[in-house]
Parts: sequence; structure tokens; C-alpha cells
Amino acid sequence: MDETDRVTAAVLIIGDEILSGRTQDINLNHIARYLGVFGVDLAEARVVPDVKAEIIAALDALRTRWDYVITTGGIGPTHDDITADCVAEAFGVPLEEHPEILEMMRERWGAEPTPARRRMARVPVGGSLVRNPVQGPPGFQIGNVFVLAGVPRIMQGMLEDVGPRLRTGRVVVSRTVRVEGTGESVMAAPLEALAVAHPNLSLGSYPFFNVDGFGSNLVVRGRDPEEVATAVDELIAAMSDIGARSVTRLEAEAGEG
Amino acid sequence: MDETDRVTAAVLIIGDEILSGRTQDINLNHIARYLGVFGVDLAEARVVPDVKAEIIAALDALRTRWDYVITTGGIGPTHDDITADCVAEAFGVPLEEHPEILEMMRERWGAEPTPARRRMARVPVGGSLVRNPVQGPPGFQIGNVFVLAGVPRIMQGMLEDVGPRLRTGRVVVSRTVRVEGTGESVMAAPLEALAVAHPNLSLGSYPFFNVDGFGSNLVVRGRDPEEVATAVDELIAAMSDIGARSVTRLEAEAGEG
Repeated sequence: MDETDRVTAAVLIIGDEILSGRTQDINLNHIARYLGVFGVDLAEARVVPDVKAEIIAALDALRTRWDYVITTGGIGPTHDDITADCVAEAFGVPLEEHPEILEMMRERWGAEPTPARRRMARVPVGGSLVRNPVQGPPGFQIGNVFVLAGVPRIMQGMLEDVGPRLRTGRVVVSRTVRVEGTGESVMAAPLEALAVAHPNLSLGSYPFFNVDGFGSNLVVRGRDPEEVATAVDELIAAMSDIGARSVTRLEAEAGEG
Repeated sequence: MDETDRVTAAVLIIGDEILSGRTQDINLNHIARYLGVFGVDLAEARVVPDVKAEIIAALDALRTRWDYVITTGGIGPTHDDITADCVAEAFGVPLEEHPEILEMMRERWGAEPTPARRRMARVPVGGSLVRNPVQGPPGFQIGNVFVLAGVPRIMQGMLEDVGPRLRTGRVVVSRTVRVEGTGESVMAAPLEALAVAHPNLSLGSYPFFNVDGFGSNLVVRGRDPEEVATAVDELIAAMSDIGARSVTRLEAEAGEG
């Protein structure tokens, strides 16, 4: 690959809680590994406080220099969640309450969203939604900037909708294993062992809780179809070893590798 | 405290291994909590690759804007350890092999240092050494920049020599408990519980291995002497609970609060 073909990204971590030390960031590491599978180089990362001028300055520095920017944090319902405002201002567009998000909220809550929830429905005009398979409202993309949640579990779920939008020459294969009746905490150790054994792959775990039960969808992604297949076999064996009751290999979705 | 009295710092994390996702950074969080005890606000953090121009540009942006900069990583013996070179260039001074470090190396190894070790003895002219109580050569300070190791255990040890050099209005009390005959891994859980219970304090663990045995010096720091005393009592009780054989409350060193 020629240097001019290099596809780059930066991560902008937004949040006083990281700079105060109250929270240990784990999003940067997850994003770095996820992007690596797609052949995207993480070129730089910055952590800024919940201060408008700081967020906008960092965002502008990063989005003009690198191919993509992924932001984490600051999209919740409280007054210090100002990421959407900052991104809109950086792009010189207004915010609007996105009709799709409002509709999702009405369906979810069976009522008109509260002002705090409406705050989370705001998207810069021209932005497209980033699917949130975990919990709460979606993220969004505008230009080369992806705006994701700060909570790692939710951020990781949203990231699954970022990869397919990236301009890369790489075909990424993705396979899902559905585990039912077993909690994520029990899966954590074997999942980590699998991640260590396969540094070229990315692993995601997206737990579900519904009327039929609980469990998690485990996603294995990589560029080498054989390594993905091997890892899926190992994953299924490991889940069996920890006594998972129901382990299902899901078919690849249409359009996936 | 007036806003003009605010003392600020930035962290510059240097290393491809962080941006590739191979390594999860935990230094930022430790530094943030450590600085917080001294009343220093961590204002910004950046992660840059092992690329000279990137390191210098980030260092200059940070050191001209904030009161202090702490860098981590890139001070080892290999060709990609270029932090000292970059800091020297940013300050416009040459590097020299520091006589004190060379002497430490001769004492430690009983011979003239190898070229790889001599590389780690290089300090920008005008720099002062930052004590390394853990393992390997010291870090250094030049102007408002502190250059520390990337390995967390070593970085944390070096940080203990940074706090006393910071210009802050805060008096910080520090107490040390020496635990012998018990490994750090056994102490990890109670130490973490103590850290969670006392977010205003900083805790350090500096293990030792020598001919007399092994163990760790546990350092509790904080601004409130009563909370430090309480935490030290709790720490001693917790070490006793996990069966530590020898737990000694060390006297405060001269000059400490």
C-alpha cells in the first residue's frame, strides 16, 4: 500500500471525568483495535474537557488533518453534554431534533419525550444517524466526523455501524455467535483470552436482555476469513467450556463478507 | 482559589503501541488522580506516535499553553525511543550523556554501559534528573516538562518525584506502609477498594525484590491529614486481612508533611 493510500483517523475523547481521573478510558484502545482490522491507522488522540472552545478547537484541528474523527462522550441528557452543539458549530450548521430519534423515543417510552430526552435527539443538520444496538439514542455522522457515546458498551455497539462507512481498501469478514442464558461477566475471561490469541481480529460483545431471556451477541471481525473461522470455532468451544447453555452460529448477514 | 491561581498540566503520551491498540494506557488516569491531590488540574491530554515532528509539535503546543507537561514513553534503549531527542530539539539544546546516570549504570552493572544503555543516559543540557525508585535509569525535567517512562509501574514511581516540584498552594501529606513477604497481586484488590473509598487520596505501590525478601512500599497521599491517617489505618487492617506477614508504618521523611 502506498503511503498516499494510508487511511487515517483520530479519536477525540470528550469529558472532565477522564481528565479528573474519575474514569479510566478504555474506548481509545477498543477503537484503535477496531480500526486496525479495517486498515485504518489511528494517527492521534486527544482528551479535552467539557468546554465548548476546547472541543471545537480540537475537533477542527483533527478533522482538517486526518481522514476521519471519532468522538466519544458528551452526548447524554445533562447540561454538560455539549458535543452535538460543538460539532454543529464547527460545521457551521444548526442543530435539529431528528424526527427518527423522536419517533424511536415515542415508541420506546410510549409518550412524548421529556426535555432531557429531546436534548439527546439533537443532530446537526445534514448529519446521518449511527445505529445504537445497545441502549439509548443513536450517535451521528456529519462529514468525516462520527459522534459516539462515552459509555464503553454503547460506544462499542455504535462502532459496528462506523466500520462499514469507512473508505478503505480492505474487505472485513464478520461472524456472529449468539450465546443465550449466560451472563457477560462469565464470558469475560475467555473472550479476553481469545482477543489476546488473535490480535489481528476485533471482538465485540453486545448483550441483550428481553422477555425471552438474556445473553450476548459476540462478533468476530477480521481480514483473514480463515482466522475468523478458526476464532469462531475456538469461541464456540470456549463458551461450551464455561457451560453456556445455548450457543448459536448466526449466518452472515446479506452484504457482509 | 482565583481562576488566575489555577495550576494546570497536560499529559503527552508517546507511543505507537497505544495508537495501535496493542497497549491499554493506564498512565493518564494515574497521573490525573495524582495531580488532583496536589491541586493541579489536568487540562488536556494527547497521544502521538513515535514520530519526531508529531512529538515536537504536540510538546510545543502543550508546554506553551499549560503550566506543566508530563510525557510518558519513548525513553527506552531502542531506535524508536526518541523522546529525549525531541524534547532537546523543542528546547533548542543538545543532548548529553548525564554523568550521574552513567555512574549509576556503572555501579549497577559493574562495567562500562553498552551503547544501548548509554542511549538511556542522554538528557538535554540543563535538565535535572527525576528519581526512579523502581528500575532502570531516571527520567528528567527541563523547564516545565517532565519526561517519564511509559511502563506504568516505573512511571508511577517517577511521579513521586514530580509532585514536590510543582508550584501549588497545597500542602500534601504522605505516609508510607511497608509490606513484606506479600506479593503485589495479592494486594491489588484491597488497594483498589481503598482507592475507590478515598477518591481524594492518591495511592502508590512500589514493590521491591532484594536479598532480604520481597514486598511493596505503599504510599498514601492527600491534603486532609485526618483522611490520610484513616486510610493508613484501613490499609493496615486490609493487609492484615489478606494475611500479610509484616506490615510496618514508616515514619514521615524529613521535609514531608
